[in-house]
Amino acid sequence: MLIVMNHNAVPADVDSVVRIVQEMGYRAEPIPGSERTAIGVLGNHGYVDDSKILELPGVQRVIHVSKPYKLVSRDFHPEDTIVDVAGVKVGQGCRPVVVGGPCAVEGEEQIVKTALHVKKCGADMLRGGAFKPRTGPHTFQGLREEGLKLLAIAGRESGLPIVTEVMSPDNVGLVAEYADLLQVGARNMQNFDLLRELGKIRKPVLLKRGMSATVEEFLAAAEYILAEGNEQVILCERGIRTYETATRNTLDLSVVPLIKEMSHMPIMVDPSHATGKRSLVAPMAKAALVAGADGVLVEVHPNPEKALSDGPQSLTFAGFDQLMNEIGLLNTFLGHRPFCIQSA
Amino acid sequence: MLIVMNHNAVPADVDSVVRIVQEMGYRAEPIPGSERTAIGVLGNHGYVDDSKILELPGVQRVIHVSKPYKLVSRDFHPEDTIVDVAGVKVGQGCRPVVVGGPCAVEGEEQIVKTALHVKKCGADMLRGGAFKPRTGPHTFQGLREEGLKLLAIAGRESGLPIVTEVMSPDNVGLVAEYADLLQVGARNMQNFDLLRELGKIRKPVLLKRGMSATVEEFLAAAEYILAEGNEQVILCERGIRTYETATRNTLDLSVVPLIKEMSHMPIMVDPSHATGKRSLVAPMAKAALVAGADGVLVEVHPNPEKALSDGPQSLTFAGFDQLMNEIGLLNTFLGHRPFCIQSA
Amino acid sequence: MLIVMNHNAVPADVDSVVRIVQEMGYRAEPIPGSERTAIGVLGNHGYVDDSKILELPGVQRVIHVSKPYKLVSRDFHPEDTIVDVAGVKVGQGCRPVVVGGPCAVEGEEQIVKTALHVKKCGADMLRGGAFKPRTGPHTFQGLREEGLKLLAIAGRESGLPIVTEVMSPDNVGLVAEYADLLQVGARNMQNFDLLRELGKIRKPVLLKRGMSATVEEFLAAAEYILAEGNEQVILCERGIRTYETATRNTLDLSVVPLIKEMSHMPIMVDPSHATGKRSLVAPMAKAALVAGADGVLVEVHPNPEKALSDGPQSLTFAGFDQLMNEIGLLNTFLGHRPFCIQSA
Amino acid sequence: MLIVMNHNAVPADVDSVVRIVQEMGYRAEPIPGSERTAIGVLGNHGYVDDSKILELPGVQRVIHVSKPYKLVSRDFHPEDTIVDVAGVKVGQGCRPVVVGGPCAVEGEEQIVKTALHVKKCGADMLRGGAFKPRTGPHTFQGLREEGLKLLAIAGRESGLPIVTEVMSPDNVGLVAEYADLLQVGARNMQNFDLLRELGKIRKPVLLKRGMSATVEEFLAAAEYILAEGNEQVILCERGIRTYETATRNTLDLSVVPLIKEMSHMPIMVDPSHATGKRSLVAPMAKAALVAGADGVLVEVHPNPEKALSDGPQSLTFAGFDQLMNEIGLLNTFLGHRPFCIQSA
Repeated sequence: MLIVMNHNAVPADVDSVVRIVQEMGYRAEPIPGSERTAIGVLGNHGYVDDSKILELPGVQRVIHVSKPYKLVSRDFHPEDTIVDVAGVKVGQGCRPVVVGGPCAVEGEEQIVKTALHVKKCGADMLRGGAFKPRTGPHTFQGLREEGLKLLAIAGRESGLPIVTEVMSPDNVGLVAEYADLLQVGARNMQNFDLLRELGKIRKPVLLKRGMSATVEEFLAAAEYILAEGNEQVILCERGIRTYETATRNTLDLSVVPLIKEMSHMPIMVDPSHATGKRSLVAPMAKAALVAGADGVLVEVHPNPEKALSDGPQSLTFAGFDQLMNEIGLLNTFLGHRPFCIQSA
Repeated sequence: MLIVMNHNAVPADVDSVVRIVQEMGYRAEPIPGSERTAIGVLGNHGYVDDSKILELPGVQRVIHVSKPYKLVSRDFHPEDTIVDVAGVKVGQGCRPVVVGGPCAVEGEEQIVKTALHVKKCGADMLRGGAFKPRTGPHTFQGLREEGLKLLAIAGRESGLPIVTEVMSPDNVGLVAEYADLLQVGARNMQNFDLLRELGKIRKPVLLKRGMSATVEEFLAAAEYILAEGNEQVILCERGIRTYETATRNTLDLSVVPLIKEMSHMPIMVDPSHATGKRSLVAPMAKAALVAGADGVLVEVHPNPEKALSDGPQSLTFAGFDQLMNEIGLLNTFLGHRPFCIQSA
Repeated sequence: MLIVMNHNAVPADVDSVVRIVQEMGYRAEPIPGSERTAIGVLGNHGYVDDSKILELPGVQRVIHVSKPYKLVSRDFHPEDTIVDVAGVKVGQGCRPVVVGGPCAVEGEEQIVKTALHVKKCGADMLRGGAFKPRTGPHTFQGLREEGLKLLAIAGRESGLPIVTEVMSPDNVGLVAEYADLLQVGARNMQNFDLLRELGKIRKPVLLKRGMSATVEEFLAAAEYILAEGNEQVILCERGIRTYETATRNTLDLSVVPLIKEMSHMPIMVDPSHATGKRSLVAPMAKAALVAGADGVLVEVHPNPEKALSDGPQSLTFAGFDQLMNEIGLLNTFLGHRPFCIQSA
Repeated sequence: MLIVMNHNAVPADVDSVVRIVQEMGYRAEPIPGSERTAIGVLGNHGYVDDSKILELPGVQRVIHVSKPYKLVSRDFHPEDTIVDVAGVKVGQGCRPVVVGGPCAVEGEEQIVKTALHVKKCGADMLRGGAFKPRTGPHTFQGLREEGLKLLAIAGRESGLPIVTEVMSPDNVGLVAEYADLLQVGARNMQNFDLLRELGKIRKPVLLKRGMSATVEEFLAAAEYILAEGNEQVILCERGIRTYETATRNTLDLSVVPLIKEMSHMPIMVDPSHATGKRSLVAPMAKAALVAGADGVLVEVHPNPEKALSDGPQSLTFAGFDQLMNEIGLLNTFLGHRPFCIQSA
């Protein structure tokens, strides 16, 4: 940590900062500059709460060299983490996975038909929402437990692992009975009670980036899950909120290689929610894989024009088929073998 | 609702849209233009799910004339709502209220001392966090139930109503035992299970705007609470996330008069979280009141430099005393009588 | 400047950074920490280009303690600057000024009538656009030189100083013949050739904040004008671009007291462009003055419904009259004397 | 255009809107709804100025079905535009081009050496800044005309067309003498006098997206150039400004396929400025090509650690070599022939 003093701070101000730092149990090293003095803080083994220091006279600002996360950091854990979702491996070096399925489970025929189709096209997992977060209370909120049961049927019939969202800590147990990968939606990325609860289970978690979360906050949210003992976490970039309204969100694809540098966790991309526009899903899915994503989530619906939610961004069966063909060629080009054999 | 067709849409496309709209139970009125055709949708009594329509060939986009909320809208409820917090009235026409207190409850002496001070200065309610949402898991997370008990002691000794945050649906009952006004933090503005649970209690709720929530989403979140039967909701602007990093958030003060136009709900402002900088709190608190806010929340700490969280944005006792004097003068200037007598 | 090394940087990496810093003519002081080493750079008298350092092995990031501006900084120039616009004083301690007038000059009757009205209501200056920046080329672009001449007539008849925009370096001379205060629009805040040209004239400049400019970039843009020798610059907050679309821009009012801390330059606020909505102009104008603004710019039009641009955000004559009455009362409340006598 | 009335608008309000629309020369068609009335405006042949209408009593909002641009729109010009830069074809169906070179021209050796290297690696054009826009006035501002002369030498020696920035309308002639493709930087995207001047020359223009420009504003800016008669414009996405600071900007790659739908103009991507981080340039360059970009601009420097600007985001010679190899393989995979034969 570094404490930067004001231009006009007096020696007594510096002394007072040094004393407080020492009271906090660290060492303080003043570094006089031509225009102002800075004070290095040494000896801390984690994030230091800077409130006390920012209060002192003459202090301009405090710069944190350390980060609010540690377990998810590559700095402290250089080897890539591979997450195992009911036998499907996700992570660096593995063939990228494709998760397909509708935004919401609407009925048995819809979800089973979709499951069989995406399986046939080569998808690795089935997605579908049973608990749906919606902006207003007057729209379809999901089939809830009934939806979970339909997902289980579709999973059995297709042989695909199930990915579905959990919105509340007290539903974690219920959702974990049915899901192979529990999804935390963007609106809940900082629902810390939910994250803690997910840290206590032994099933993998798909953590979506919050609408306006920084990469640092994203990793710190994952840290909540790891800190409780669950290391099976997959991150997911799904677009951030910006001033641009031509797309539903702004897909921040650069975080894929960036997070690969900062963290050992796998990262996937959801081009459907990111763009909100069917015609942009395939180009962005392929771009994500070239950028290094460990997989993509794609919305597919047997009849998008009749979907109860997110129809405009859902691929048709034919569209998904075509995308899977292209992804197959791309994976071969990128040199991914069909199965991932974890070396470490 | 209005459906806008592509430049090159053919008559069959228009016919197909008309048919689908009719199947949905509404009337469809084509409006041919020189460059393209638009189709008006009539007869709906609420928000129409546009997924099916956006799917159809030739459709460019759909424009919603109606909104995802109704109960909170001034359009449908022209009279101002006055919220009663243990006898303190909040809303249009009432004297603006001041809620003071520390970010977090840290101990009995700290919270009682602060309560007595803010009471003496003329504050109307006491705030203090027992459950604290923090970016990373390795920092102070609040005293939890112990904090609620200390708040109760401070409330009794000062005679002030208590405002405190609830983070999880299963804690609503517990927090409601101690709090007179239950706060939903920015990170939980779209924690819909929490909102629904708060809709079922008979205590008022302070709903903070999400970090990147639009005004429409903010009102739709309040709608969740009202839809369950609890109309005692106070909105709170606390700064939004933008590219600017010179302040902690960007205080969006224009929404105060804007929300007064759009809704009948009271709206308060939190200049402490919005700016993150002690020296900006007083100017922004006063600006908020002049802009029409029904009250302000201000962080106060007996010893900000030793605060466990948000020290840099907390006022000292002396600073709060001075602000309250200025607010008193401002209220007299603005013509607010000391007590609000609700007419309706 | 502080250079932060990676966790796993080796001593040779640190040595190589030290050597390069010394080659740049500065002193380098390594500060070993428990997790990583940082290196303080001493002896620089301005902003240091960090490109070379960021290149070196083992370097994580570089933190600049100094800023890209100096002349506009309060750190180096503690006394407030008072700008003199044809006899009207603008700055800290002066009565806040009001600039009124239409978005665009549309004809002699319109501008003269508006000038006489705003003068009668107590405005201090007349604004009106002759050169208009518009998003697309197919809309009204202003009367250009003809507009300047009409402004001159309106200025003579009302006795008000003229504020108008200049868009291009080669028009600075022409606009300076007519204007008492030359405005740089938000889109041109980083039109550096224009800023340099304005630094060479002896007339005051009103610099509007760019749509997505940080406070630091805003001050650095002003620095371009001061660096060429013109210290008569007034800053103007006019709303920034955010994800929120309910208002035209997001008025960032907190920068008013913030810039007062960081800089000695006067700062005004334009609530018309910030909100884009007539009903929000008066509350935000008053909030700006309470927050410490040195003045406000308000759009006024004799007939807003027939205005060629920005009608929806223009006050009517009656609306301006009422606002000026309220501002008069507010100024008395705030203790501003009618005229500013500059002490320094 | 569609005019939406308030819930409580009376018939006289509707009549008054209809009358004004008719006075403007268009037809007005009221569409009564269950909750409010909307009024369709028919017969306009371009963008309608809505100021007068928004002023009228009872009007809630106006929705524009048409756009502020037309010449750049695919709706009115379905065939792809191919831009010819000194013989190098850029546009849909052509092999994507690579523009390589340093951020700034620093000296003859630097620019010639870089030109020969990027040529050898297979680059199609040479980039290099002679006029440099910089945040503050106290840093290197480019070699200006001297830089143009050095670019000309490097162009001759390597045989590569030259791409360089022009910042001011009065420099267009000068820059056009040396450059084969004139670049408009992000800060000048709405410098309308500059755009108009570029519309009058007969050389192609590379228009970079403004830092916070919407896609609509971006296309409208290009419209300024086309409206003056120059149709040889290439758009360039270079990252937008968001709340995220982990990358220099946020690369908005989804606009590549989106703009391909909306416009017939070629679009390139600049991953260097977008990410600001060398390690992210290659993944994002390849992702851009897979997303459909017509080319990429990449910063290359013989010695990035000594670069006068943007060193941290510049590739080394070896890094560029490797990227060009990968791009070559990718182009073959994507099916691009080495040369583009324009069919239309």
